Order: sequence, then C-alpha cells, then structure tokens
Amino acid sequence: MTTTTPRLDHTLVLDELGQLLGSNLLTDPATLDAMRADKSGHVSPTTPLAVVLPRSVTEVQAVMRLATAHRVPVVTRGAGTGLAGGALASAGEIVLSTLAMNRILEINAADELAVVEPGIINARFNRELAPHGLWFAPDPASREISTVGGNIATNAGGLLCNKYGVTRDAVLGLSVVLADGRLVEMGHRSTKGVTGLDFTSLMVGSEGVLGVIVGATVRVRRITPGTVFTIAAYFTDVRTAAAASASVTASGIRASVMELMDAACLAAVGPYLGLDLADRGGAYLVAQTDGGSAEEEARQIAAILAAAGGIPSITGDHAEGEALLAIRRAMHPALETTGTVLIEDVSVPRSALPAMFDAIASIEARFGITIPTAAHAGDGNLHPNFVFAGAVVPPLIWEAADALFQAAIALGGTLTGEHGIGILKRRWLRGELGDDQFDLQQQVKSLFDPLGLLNPGKVF
Amino acid sequence: MTTTTPRLDHTLVLDELGQLLGSNLLTDPATLDAMRADKSGHVSPTTPLAVVLPRSVTEVQAVMRLATAHRVPVVTRGAGTGLAGGALASAGEIVLSTLAMNRILEINAADELAVVEPGIINARFNRELAPHGLWFAPDPASREISTVGGNIATNAGGLLCNKYGVTRDAVLGLSVVLADGRLVEMGHRSTKGVTGLDFTSLMVGSEGVLGVIVGATVRVRRITPGTVFTIAAYFTDVRTAAAASASVTASGIRASVMELMDAACLAAVGPYLGLDLADRGGAYLVAQTDGGSAEEEARQIAAILAAAGGIPSITGDHAEGEALLAIRRAMHPALETTGTVLIEDVSVPRSALPAMFDAIASIEARFGITIPTAAHAGDGNLHPNFVFAGAVVPPLIWEAADALFQAAIALGGTLTGEHGIGILKRRWLRGELGDDQFDLQQQVKSLFDPLGLLNPGKVF
Repeated sequence: MTTTTPRLDHTLVLDELGQLLGSNLLTDPATLDAMRADKSGHVSPTTPLAVVLPRSVTEVQAVMRLATAHRVPVVTRGAGTGLAGGALASAGEIVLSTLAMNRILEINAADELAVVEPGIINARFNRELAPHGLWFAPDPASREISTVGGNIATNAGGLLCNKYGVTRDAVLGLSVVLADGRLVEMGHRSTKGVTGLDFTSLMVGSEGVLGVIVGATVRVRRITPGTVFTIAAYFTDVRTAAAASASVTASGIRASVMELMDAACLAAVGPYLGLDLADRGGAYLVAQTDGGSAEEEARQIAAILAAAGGIPSITGDHAEGEALLAIRRAMHPALETTGTVLIEDVSVPRSALPAMFDAIASIEARFGITIPTAAHAGDGNLHPNFVFAGAVVPPLIWEAADALFQAAIALGGTLTGEHGIGILKRRWLRGELGDDQFDLQQQVKSLFDPLGLLNPGKVF
Repeated sequence: MTTTTPRLDHTLVLDELGQLLGSNLLTDPATLDAMRADKSGHVSPTTPLAVVLPRSVTEVQAVMRLATAHRVPVVTRGAGTGLAGGALASAGEIVLSTLAMNRILEINAADELAVVEPGIINARFNRELAPHGLWFAPDPASREISTVGGNIATNAGGLLCNKYGVTRDAVLGLSVVLADGRLVEMGHRSTKGVTGLDFTSLMVGSEGVLGVIVGATVRVRRITPGTVFTIAAYFTDVRTAAAASASVTASGIRASVMELMDAACLAAVGPYLGLDLADRGGAYLVAQTDGGSAEEEARQIAAILAAAGGIPSITGDHAEGEALLAIRRAMHPALETTGTVLIEDVSVPRSALPAMFDAIASIEARFGITIPTAAHAGDGNLHPNFVFAGAVVPPLIWEAADALFQAAIALGGTLTGEHGIGILKRRWLRGELGDDQFDLQQQVKSLFDPLGLLNPGKVF
C-alpha cells in the first residue's frame, strides 16, 4: 500500500483488494446485488463496491488497514439471515464476508469449550460436536443457515433460551479485529475471569459496529441424556394460552422449549403444512422438557395447561414431538406465502405475556389490521408479524409497530429481544435507552471506530 | 451549590455534604480509619476526607454533582469485604457507602426476579427470598457480610458457580449514577433484550470506575427441591486430587460444588477446627450434587474419585454435609491465624488444574516458600495463598505471585477469576489484556468518567 490519502478512489481500492485477496474479491453484479438484502424484508437502495472473503485473521487485518487508509466503510456479514437489516450494504461499502473463515479450530470436551472461526454455520458446528457428545446451545430459528459469528454479533436467541440461555451465555472469549486492523484478544478459556472491563460481553450483540469478530471461544454443553417429552395444547384464544404459559413459568418448572401461536398464525400454517388446524382452537402452545425429570415435568405442565383451559397431549416419541414443533417452526415461511412479512421482536417479563397480547389486540383494533403473533412464551419474547403487499413497509404499519414497542417498554420490556436494532429499529433506540445512555453508547462506538467505518448507519 | 470552581476546598465540600446528608456524613477518625482497609490485607497509607451514606438515588446524584463541581474523587464502597483493595480510600477522597441503601424493592416469583438497592447483604437478601421459595445464586465466601452491590461491582464468584454461574449471569438490569450525577437505567426486566450495546454487562465487574450502581434488577431462582448430597475424599497429594477433579468435570456430571484443598491448607485447618486431619491425606476434595438426580450423580462422582485414588464418602445428611464443607470454608480464617495472608485468585481451564498445581509446586521450590492452595476445582479457579509476617507484602512474594500469574495466563487462564484487579493486581492488567485492549478499556473509563473522579488509582 503506497497511499494513505483519505480519498475515495474506488479503482485503487479494488485494485489493492484484488492484490490482497485474488479470487476472493467479488464484484460481479449478482453477488453485489445479493448484499442489498437480508431476511428482514428490507432492501438497500444501492449495491456495495465489493465483497471480500478473507481466509484468515491476517487477511481481515489487511482489509481493515486498507479500508482505514482509504476511509472505505466495511459491513461485516455472515450468512445474511438477520431480521433487522444489520448486514445490508450500500454504495461505496466493502462487504467483509466471514464465510471463507468457517473452520472449527478446536473441540475440547474436557473443558466443554470449542474454538471456531466466525463463518461456520450453527447447524454444521452442532453436527461436528455431536460425535463428541456435545452441543452448542444457541439455536436461532435460522440455525441451519446462520453463522456462529452472526449469532454472536446479534446475541441471537432461539427456542431453547428459556432453559439454556442466549448466545452471550455461551461466549467465553473473542478475537476481534479493530477498524484500523489491530487484533485484540478478549476473554479467556477459563470459565471465570474478571480481568478489567468485560469487553467480551460488550462485543456480543454489537452488530458489527465495534469490530470484526474473527474467532470465538465458546462454551459447549454435554448433550442432555434421556428422552425429550413434548406437550402440545390448543386453547380457545391466545390470551388464555398466554396466561397458561405464565402459570407454567410461575410453577417453577423450566421447560427447555415453550412456544405459543395465535389464531392468525395457525390459519396460515394449516394450509402451508397441509394440516386441518381450523377447528382445533384459537391458540397453540407447545413445550418440551428434557433431562432426568423430563417425563414428570411434562405431566406437570400438561396438568397446568389443562387446568388453564387447554386440551393437552404428551409424547415421548421423537418424530411425533418434532411434528408438534414443526407447526411452530412453519410460522414464518407460512406467513411469507401470504405477503411481505415484517417480523417484530418485543420482549416482556414472562408474567406480562397476557398483558402484551391484550396490547396487541388493542393495536389490531385501533389500526384495523391483523397481527399474527408467535412467542417464545417461556422467555416472554413475542414475534408479532405485519403482513402487507409490496416491498416497502407502509407508514401505518410503522405506526402500529411503534405502538407495539411503547407497549412492551411500558410493561418493563424491550423493543428487541433477539433480533437487534440494525436499520429497522434505529429510530426507537434512543427512546428506550434514554438520551444519556444513547449518547454514551454512541461515544463508545466512536472510541472503537473513530472514523465511523464499521457498519455505518446501523444501530445508532 | 453556588460554586463550580474546580478547586479542592475541603471545608466547603464538607459543609455542603453536611447540608445534604446531615448525620449521614461521617468524619470521625475511627470511621475514616476503617476506610483504609478491606479484606485484602492491603491498607491505604492515608485516611479519606469523609464517609457519606446516602439513603436514596437522589442523594447519590447530589453527592456526585457536588463531587464533580469540586473535583473531589469518590470511592464507592459496600461492606468492604473485597480482596483486591478495590474499595480502599485515601486522602482527599469521599467514600460513598451504599450501606444505607439496603432495601429490597420487589420480589417477583412469577418473573423470577427481584429489585434491590446495592447495600443489601447477600445472605440477608437470601433469607428474605427463602419464604418465597427463591434464592439468589451468587454465593461468594463473604456472603454473610458482603453486599449485593459489591458482588455486582466485582462480578463475584463463589462455591456454586460451577452449576449456577457467576454474578453477571444473575443481573438483568442496573440503575447507575454517572460521575456527573446523571442517572442511567441499563438493561430491563425481561429475560431477553439486545437493544444497543450491553452496558449492563459492562458495568458488572467494573469495580466502581465507571459509575455508582444504585439499584439492580436480578434474576432469582426457584430453590432446588430435594436432598443435597455431599461427597468428600482424601488423596495422597494435590496433583492426584486435581486430576480426579478434572475427571469428574470431563465425565459431564455437573456438581453444584467441587472444592479442593492441599496439604498446607489442611495443616492449618485441622488445629483451627480442632480436627485431626494430619493423617487423612495430602489433599481434600469435597463436592455436592443437587436436583432430581443428586444421589445418582453423587455415586458416580464417588466412583470416579475412588478410581482416581481417593477414599470417598457420601452423605445425604445436611449437618454431615455442612461439616464436610466447613473444612473448606475454614481455609481462609485458619490461614489468618498463621500470619498475614495474601490470597491469590488465578483461574485456568478445568483440564489445566493439574498443570497449574505443578506450576505452583515449581514456584514453591524456586522461591523456597509454601503456597497453601485451595481451589473452586469445578471452575478451575485457584486460591493460592501467601502467608508472611508484618503488614507489607515482601518483594519476594510479589515475584512469586508474578510467576503464578504468568503460569495461569500461559495455560489459557487469567490472573483473577473472581476477586478483581483493585489496587493489588493493577501492575499485571496491561500484560494480560495487551496494550491495545488496555488502552481501549482505559478510554472507555475516561468516557464514563472524564474527570477521573471515580475510584481513582483502581484497576487502571
């Protein structure tokens, strides 16, 4: 590199990137076009300058040094499965894809940890762990297609958080390349450590605005032995089902999975899966238990659901259990057959679940729309969906979403439980954090990235 | 307040503090003198200006505004049970004691959370939770005398972390007063939330250098039903016992407690407790199991310990179990009868426990000293102790401690697993974090506290 002039000479930048990465620099229109979108439904109006696929930490550092020298913004991207627009790229930006850094560097059963590169797909990682009797607990719905690095950058949740925690709980240490190319090692391999400020936790969920995660030391767990039991119940209406779910939580039984769907979700899923769900009820709750007391806990949950007005069934059969859970997993693809879907992600204390469903009903009435809603009920994390025609979210939908966010925050919750801020929720961030905290967070961002090159326009 | 002149006029400061706090401003010599020490053995050479005991968030804010206006440093202090000198105060400093803010504001069984003021004693909090069938998992050895706010500020560990996590895992949200008196609410009451950067986690373990924790929303757990089983075993030597502990971890059985003591610890504890431990063996390992499979897991652990050369016993009797654990709990007070104790706190991956004991043996030989060592073996967290005469740590001891830290870091560990940096470990922090991360952490500190008024000279 012979120049450090802060000037955007894209030809020069591409030339230098080409020298650095050879065929791992991509600039063909189809590849660039794909970088405009993720799974949020939102699409960037422009295409980025280039996609780079570094194969090593050293190459990531070289890319960041080059980006800093030329003042070119960089969007780090895993598999592009985000739901908040956090990895969308636009004109003049380099997309730093982690997909060529997808190795498992170590699986250590004795210490229950693994060291991975960021681009490994969550499900592939789990398939490699299984022969060791181990698994990686974070299980976003996207786990078959999302990367561990992306899971970490968004602090992804999933179905099993109720018992096994969110992604942050699974991260021991991170290797991070800063905006100027310096490599910093955060955390350690020991399970405990209080050395200085907890930068590892600060990086988890930081959505690419603080640095590039190029390696992770993660906790892995022993596979829970024994049979998984699945409990499913239909209810007359979603509020009754939500109250039943809150009763299960209040009983102290910790289901590994507890999911809820309302009538509008069921109406979409029935035809999608070819099931006749129309007469089954106005809401569906499905839970799973595992571990030594799984069967007993399943019976207790079923009894609570029955007492709360549900019609429960229990199975210890794996295929039957998966079929009952498949109804929940089909929610998003089923809704997508009915229009463009904006999936929201509010989270409230678990006891506030019925109140949040009341708020949703009231917003539906006020705006004259239907908001099909599913929930990770065991966590109090709801996914209300807005379905509309065309590619652009109508202003009325944003107004309704705003009302949703305010209701969740008023109940002691948050506007995003597991998807992140990205582009789609920026306008609400300051409101939730308050001016002082928002400003302080933005200043931390500026410390890590003084030139504002990392994922510009996201989060803040 | 009529002046904002950045000048140290202590009479004026005391006068204004007196107007603000009345009898909750303390300046008597005995009180000030007590602020020079904590449980680390380290003593500040000077006494602070005053101790203030604010009774509300508003009063804390007023104290901080006053401190900022007059540029007076503030040391936040709970019960003063820290082991790294993190709450020691010196000339010209105000000690902000949290002890008058010790209320439980809410216990919410349905949401498994509680809201507390920082000054509440951990054990008292647990006694209040018990009638609700709940408990707060962080259990530092100091739990009968340490505050929840102090536990959070140091990310305290304890005996139960192996199964129930460290303090960070128990914190959902924090109310924090910044150096200039502004109040910031971090986190939320929901179990999930990814709204912006994770400032809650950044505050946990920040040792008073970023802000004053004035309230906490914490996770509480259902009391685990059933009998607790205790397994105790003597071994010929500590390395064999460490290898046995690593085998238990590697088996996948998760004991709630797994503690280890070497011969030098046993030699001190025997006379202290009036027990004849001299002929029992050269190391002691004590573990507990709880939950539905407690008895079966206890038998499996005993079998592993026996196969590894131990002579195990099992009991389901509460009093007998407590007596077996009392041997471990007596380690620190027993050593204190033999001299001044500097307790260290290295942490390594669990499989490296035998290697760390080898390193300790080699340091003992090299420096011609005995290093009585106990360990939270299930976590890989060791407490090597240096015992010496007089109040000042001799240079030779610091050299030996330095060798300990280097050995732990070389094994993938850290120089402090649960005690923090405070004053005592400052000189090693840069080495572990690396220059780049150290500088960035110090810059974050400066962002939160631009005038450097919060706990000056600690951590960085």
